Amino acid sequence: MAALKLYGHPMSSCTARVMICLVEKNVEFELVHVDPFSGQHKSPDFLTKNPFGLIPVLEDGDFVIIESRAITEYICKKYAGNGTEDLLRSDDLRQSTRVRAWVEVESHCFQPVMSPIIYQSYVVPLMRSTPDEKAIEDSLEKLRKVLDIYEARLGETKYLAGDAFSLADLHHLPYMFFFTKIERISGPVLEERPRVKAWWEEISSRAAFKEVSKGMKLEK
Amino acid sequence: MAALKLYGHPMSSCTARVMICLVEKNVEFELVHVDPFSGQHKSPDFLTKNPFGLIPVLEDGDFVIIESRAITEYICKKYAGNGTEDLLRSDDLRQSTRVRAWVEVESHCFQPVMSPIIYQSYVVPLMRSTPDEKAIEDSLEKLRKVLDIYEARLGETKYLAGDAFSLADLHHLPYMFFFTKIERISGPVLEERPRVKAWWEEISSRAAFKEVSKGMKLEK
Repeated sequence: MAALKLYGHPMSSCTARVMICLVEKNVEFELVHVDPFSGQHKSPDFLTKNPFGLIPVLEDGDFVIIESRAITEYICKKYAGNGTEDLLRSDDLRQSTRVRAWVEVESHCFQPVMSPIIYQSYVVPLMRSTPDEKAIEDSLEKLRKVLDIYEARLGETKYLAGDAFSLADLHHLPYMFFFTKIERISGPVLEERPRVKAWWEEISSRAAFKEVSKGMKLEK
Repeated sequence: MAALKLYGHPMSSCTARVMICLVEKNVEFELVHVDPFSGQHKSPDFLTKNPFGLIPVLEDGDFVIIESRAITEYICKKYAGNGTEDLLRSDDLRQSTRVRAWVEVESHCFQPVMSPIIYQSYVVPLMRSTPDEKAIEDSLEKLRKVLDIYEARLGETKYLAGDAFSLADLHHLPYMFFFTKIERISGPVLEERPRVKAWWEEISSRAAFKEVSKGMKLEK
């Protein structure tokens, strides 16, 4: 039995974010399926783990952790000696601060503009409704501006927070994966930004992501 | 001349968040005013500091840091021995993870529902427009649910991440401050949640916050 239990669902971007981190750090875990489409994340049992009713939740024995970006940091710290070397760059304050800043950029600049595109393109059709093309276009316009800044940044450093792969890059993987699957939208966006495209090809070719992404299907 | 330069504006919640942290840690700094109402945060000069055009930015010599929640963590780590004792609980992995998780809760559960209330109540009138009362009520309904969870949490521990004041509490101060100033809305919300009210009264009575909040006025 694995020591760690991850409650979530592989089609949830936040769950996938944690799974990729666990595999990068070579940490054994058990995925306990909590299906958001059947409302399991709002069941009384799950609410005792996370009162906000959000997946994922990590259980390490009697220690329960909520919020995907706090969970990945916990994994990196607890399993510092395992798998991929320090994704937080903890040994150097300036480097670790750059990682932390780009983790925040993902949270506050990238995710809010990417999220409506993914929601409208995948979740709305699953609910047998029609995607709001105007909402997609509005978000896409903002996303292009954000990715223009990424394009410039990736001309200075190989990865977002410096010349080594870090948690900041890893956190982008799930949403970028779903985005690149919508080729009619993502194709032109990436063609116009060759460094973002090369960065995506680089980070998505890592073994940990390839393993986790096999199970990432936005379908019921 | 102070070693640290903080580019921002005291009426910006994100700038105030960093200022409160600097004062808690007893760190001298110079506030360089960047006025978002006159568009200074989108000037070519400021965009060289933060290409996303967002305040605040911290300059520590030649080291430039963006994103308020990354800046506060940097301050706590660099000035670990100064002022208020460790706001990150770095010595204990479980405690520091709880702080990190509640920092994320502020980012992803609290701030997104509080932000439209503050925007409609303060910023829209400043732009000589009429607040969208429906938008306020919609956000308020979500905020009540979030604060119900805080109410339960504050029955288990004195502060959000444990029995000591931490960065997780501190990050809530600016938005809570502006919210509590709208008494017709915040009055009933806090009366119905006595532990949240007591927590707010406790954290807002700290000397660092009292000093910074004197300059927090949402007006042109």
